[in-house]
Amino acid sequence: MPQRKLDVVLDSVKRLMRMGATANLVNLLQKQYPADLAQLFSELPDKERQTAFTLLAERNSKLAMEALSELGPEAAAALLRDRTAEEIVKLTQELPSDDAAALIDYLPEELSSAVLELLQKRPAGGDVGELLEYAEKTAGRIMNPKVFALAEDITAGEAITALQGSRDVEVVFYLYVIDVRRHLVGVVSLRRLLLVAPDTPLKRIMTTDLISVRADMDQEEVARLVASYNLLAIPVVDEENKLVGVITVDDVIDVIKDEATEDVYRLAGVAGDDRVFTPAAESLRKRLPWLLINLATAFLAASVVGIFKNTIDKVVALAIYMPVVAGMGGNAATQTLTVIVRGIALGELTWGNTRKALFKEATVGIGNGIACGVIGAVVAWLFSSDPWLGGILAMAMIINMFVAATAGTLIPLMLRALKVDPALASSVFITTLTDVFGFFSFLGLAQVFLKYLHQSG
Amino acid sequence: MPQRKLDVVLDSVKRLMRMGATANLVNLLQKQYPADLAQLFSELPDKERQTAFTLLAERNSKLAMEALSELGPEAAAALLRDRTAEEIVKLTQELPSDDAAALIDYLPEELSSAVLELLQKRPAGGDVGELLEYAEKTAGRIMNPKVFALAEDITAGEAITALQGSRDVEVVFYLYVIDVRRHLVGVVSLRRLLLVAPDTPLKRIMTTDLISVRADMDQEEVARLVASYNLLAIPVVDEENKLVGVITVDDVIDVIKDEATEDVYRLAGVAGDDRVFTPAAESLRKRLPWLLINLATAFLAASVVGIFKNTIDKVVALAIYMPVVAGMGGNAATQTLTVIVRGIALGELTWGNTRKALFKEATVGIGNGIACGVIGAVVAWLFSSDPWLGGILAMAMIINMFVAATAGTLIPLMLRALKVDPALASSVFITTLTDVFGFFSFLGLAQVFLKYLHQSG
Repeated sequence: MPQRKLDVVLDSVKRLMRMGATANLVNLLQKQYPADLAQLFSELPDKERQTAFTLLAERNSKLAMEALSELGPEAAAALLRDRTAEEIVKLTQELPSDDAAALIDYLPEELSSAVLELLQKRPAGGDVGELLEYAEKTAGRIMNPKVFALAEDITAGEAITALQGSRDVEVVFYLYVIDVRRHLVGVVSLRRLLLVAPDTPLKRIMTTDLISVRADMDQEEVARLVASYNLLAIPVVDEENKLVGVITVDDVIDVIKDEATEDVYRLAGVAGDDRVFTPAAESLRKRLPWLLINLATAFLAASVVGIFKNTIDKVVALAIYMPVVAGMGGNAATQTLTVIVRGIALGELTWGNTRKALFKEATVGIGNGIACGVIGAVVAWLFSSDPWLGGILAMAMIINMFVAATAGTLIPLMLRALKVDPALASSVFITTLTDVFGFFSFLGLAQVFLKYLHQSG
Repeated sequence: MPQRKLDVVLDSVKRLMRMGATANLVNLLQKQYPADLAQLFSELPDKERQTAFTLLAERNSKLAMEALSELGPEAAAALLRDRTAEEIVKLTQELPSDDAAALIDYLPEELSSAVLELLQKRPAGGDVGELLEYAEKTAGRIMNPKVFALAEDITAGEAITALQGSRDVEVVFYLYVIDVRRHLVGVVSLRRLLLVAPDTPLKRIMTTDLISVRADMDQEEVARLVASYNLLAIPVVDEENKLVGVITVDDVIDVIKDEATEDVYRLAGVAGDDRVFTPAAESLRKRLPWLLINLATAFLAASVVGIFKNTIDKVVALAIYMPVVAGMGGNAATQTLTVIVRGIALGELTWGNTRKALFKEATVGIGNGIACGVIGAVVAWLFSSDPWLGGILAMAMIINMFVAATAGTLIPLMLRALKVDPALASSVFITTLTDVFGFFSFLGLAQVFLKYLHQSG
């Protein structure tokens, strides 16, 4: 089992470090896969991580940089930030341009400019600078500009020869075919190439109905295309349909994982780059604004309670049960919201079927409201021995859970119409709404039926 | 842009259906990719979806079934459930065994047994039955048992010939090499095969240090391996290291998407298969248990408020501000919980670095508590013109947000140690805890400092 094996390696690394057995340590590190090294690095304390990386980079800079790249650009940039721009340029040459660009983007401002300046002077370094000119989270930013492309008038045999000579192209899945002005005109799979006679022209065996993306397409959209068409790679073209790069499925997997994390995070009010080991001060700075917005809305809900201060003064039991109504509305709303937000993200929910979704969620909301309301009413009645209190609790809960379901459906859809990420802002609106409606319906009904309720004192 | 194009097709499909132009309709459907057809099907009303599928299945059953397979096993099974077992067997023959198995598993009990019985009698049908013998969500269940493997003693040239003759194998990325007893001994990439002389023995060019998974490995673990080693496919072996199948990267993408949805869903108390268009009755049945658990814990929190009934009776303003303390604790806890649960899912959080994570989250919790507490105190003081009320609010908020951060870190970790999915149960524990602690700290402090507070009446 890989996890167990890694623990053994981790223990050895720590032991060899304590012993100062540098040569043995480097030998051990050299035998690991980049992904395993990344995991090792992430589990080592800061100082040991720096030492291990430095030692490995001296001996095998390619492997060290591949491991760094697997570690994610933020952590990778942190490990490089004490080096000079020259050293960083030399090290990033070991990486594909897209990975190098992501990493350089996370370096401190000054250092990253220095690195980019140096890169522009190098023959192949211009790629990285070009990638960084595309907007963040677009196809252009994650593509590899070194794409293997063939002219449309050569034969299958010539294509195989060309392929054999192409040493610096990462991995080849599909062979893209271009015309004389580099327009993308077709695609041939490696396997297809093996199945035809060597003198067959590419033109005759290529598929012309191919799926490509524009360099400015959102990376999430790219990931959706690659996933739904089961592609291994997707060619990237510019506005004139000229081939400028390729995005491979392993980059797409990273996008899918990041976007999934982002959705979970946004629903909870956490920034996408706030991870387990982000420094405390940074996490604080990222999470506090969200909490302050929630604090403001909490006071808004509190002011609703304030309106009914005199009613509570007469029936203190209301203070005991009012959080139940608000809280249950919040729980039901979170369920609806999650299903809707994820439905939007997965492309299941479109404009055409919104009404159907709304009707369904409203039905579920009323159903849940009746079930929870009746049970809640009985419990409240037993505890307070006041049947009217129970009845009011039930009514308020049904109203609030209906509101929760409707708002949980409509708010993310409205935000999407306003081009705001539904995952980002929905939950704060929803919580406010279910708190305000919960308190208002429960305390309002209590005020209306005040004379039937057992009054305190 | 693909979305726009699809809308045009959707409109045409609806129009042709209304006109009864069956031949044109089938022609139009035939021109679509399976993934686009799946999207079309999902956007058509039930009756039209059934009609479109039936028409397409008559003309091009392979395409119809591929579209069905992209639609997801649940919706696909729903479209087939009115057919006879014989018809279903015939249609599922168009799919790779793993997709067929997933679909059959979702058919109504009786129908799926009938289908499986018929399948056992067919030469190639046994595969599906065998896949269904593996536990759900394991490698065995999602693998394709038709794996292309070569004997270790053949040459590169012979391998290419064998490859050219293999028509029924889906897609080949890597060539797995086996010994005489079918033990997996190595792997050769298609590209490598092209780069060597035809008489080179496979034994000399194969990589023996290859990553494989056992058929009983959890699919999430498989996905993590494929993603972190950037693989296109991973071989599946039995307990004796004999090659039994292969899992390709497109299946892994589906797993990653499903598991991400599952994590989001579980944090919100929604079942994994509860989607936007799951029938209302089914969604209700799935969500109600979670709400009832929350109802029980809400009453637990309410009973804490009940303890301080007399204090609230004396200072009604406490009822106004107590939900603020509980709610802010809940928000802070959700942030911590999300970061920790996602950190566990992504493999960033291990036993070794737990203490570091706990210390960090506790620091963030206290920091957020002080910031929110001080602001909250000022606001409460201004509204109630009672400085002591403000002070108590601040203290209670700091305590509760510290508890929220610590519990938000420890509860998911403890659940993982108990082999319970941390995403599943954490949020209900956390909400209960922050409610109970929020009410207890705020009302408890108020009781202690009662004589300093402005009393009502």
